Amino acid sequence: MTQQVATNITWHEGTVSKEERFKNLGQKGCTLWMTGLSGSGKSTIAVALEQVLLQQNKHAYRLDGDNVRHGLNKNLGFSADDRTENIRRIGEVAKLFADAGIITITSFISPYRADRDLCRELHDKEGLPFLEVFIDCTLEEAENRDPKGLYKKARAGEIKGFTGIDDPYEEPADAELHLKTHELSVAESVQKILDLLKEKGLTSA
Amino acid sequence: MTQQVATNITWHEGTVSKEERFKNLGQKGCTLWMTGLSGSGKSTIAVALEQVLLQQNKHAYRLDGDNVRHGLNKNLGFSADDRTENIRRIGEVAKLFADAGIITITSFISPYRADRDLCRELHDKEGLPFLEVFIDCTLEEAENRDPKGLYKKARAGEIKGFTGIDDPYEEPADAELHLKTHELSVAESVQKILDLLKEKGLTSA
Repeated sequence: MTQQVATNITWHEGTVSKEERFKNLGQKGCTLWMTGLSGSGKSTIAVALEQVLLQQNKHAYRLDGDNVRHGLNKNLGFSADDRTENIRRIGEVAKLFADAGIITITSFISPYRADRDLCRELHDKEGLPFLEVFIDCTLEEAENRDPKGLYKKARAGEIKGFTGIDDPYEEPADAELHLKTHELSVAESVQKILDLLKEKGLTSA
Repeated sequence: MTQQVATNITWHEGTVSKEERFKNLGQKGCTLWMTGLSGSGKSTIAVALEQVLLQQNKHAYRLDGDNVRHGLNKNLGFSADDRTENIRRIGEVAKLFADAGIITITSFISPYRADRDLCRELHDKEGLPFLEVFIDCTLEEAENRDPKGLYKKARAGEIKGFTGIDDPYEEPADAELHLKTHELSVAESVQKILDLLKEKGLTSA
């Protein structure tokens, strides 16, 4: 005999909508897609932004090389096909996070316009905001900073196909935000992103 | 000259920890990994659970065939390698969602023990709770329900390698929860999952 347990659980037909999730979180899910040269400041800005959003009780998550390249995309190399697949998967995962209601911050060089445009389309199809943030910095400045010593290796021929040296960076034509990090402080860059989120109505629901 | 904008933005060294995210959301991130035959009730329970968690102002997200097979995993087929890669990617994405603080509900047959164990390891390594929920239903019952008419097609030989018919389902040996859906109502199953979350201390932070 089945033991009947008294419950007060009720639910309706159909699944929870993204609008219900957004209301529950007090914000709208979206993807902030940071793109720019190695050393341009993507990670620095993303990390600072994440902290400031947390201070405001907003819910953000960063997707970056650390948690994606060694996990989801660890079976991808650096061939042209693999680079495209790398960005495609990140775009798909960002879309899921945005759908869940999270302010999703991706921080990848993502040098090819076609790859970024595909990610935008994935979001557009689901009615999820995709905000491209061009983290712009001159090659000279990025190379001067060279925080990971990668430009030095690329110049020495130890790394092949390095963006800005022997592989192109295709600048965004219609980014929602263009931050010149050789002119702006990190705080100013973060403030401009917060202003964009507010202007788009994403920090409330 | 650079225009200095007054901001009150401050942040510290280092990244936001998962504990900070959990506190901000008032819950701990985790993955509820539902596994069971086609027709066993995984999706029905997952959908009801998602709604009930929302009613309790908890933050959940479902990963299922609808949002994964046609997106992130749309370049995978049904070969043995592709099935393993399918589950691996889902495990990696679930891990990211759990890390973000979300109660992540995956709803896939995931018939092979080795594949599920890999997903558990991915979570263990990051100190993220992985709760395997065996949605158990006799093959006879699942085949009687046959909500999508798939068993009929498999019996007719129109689908090859169908779990339970001509491909094995490897039952979990140590699932955190074992729900016999031919004995339990959906409400009872959901209540048992809620009890498990509470017992593990995941619905507060």
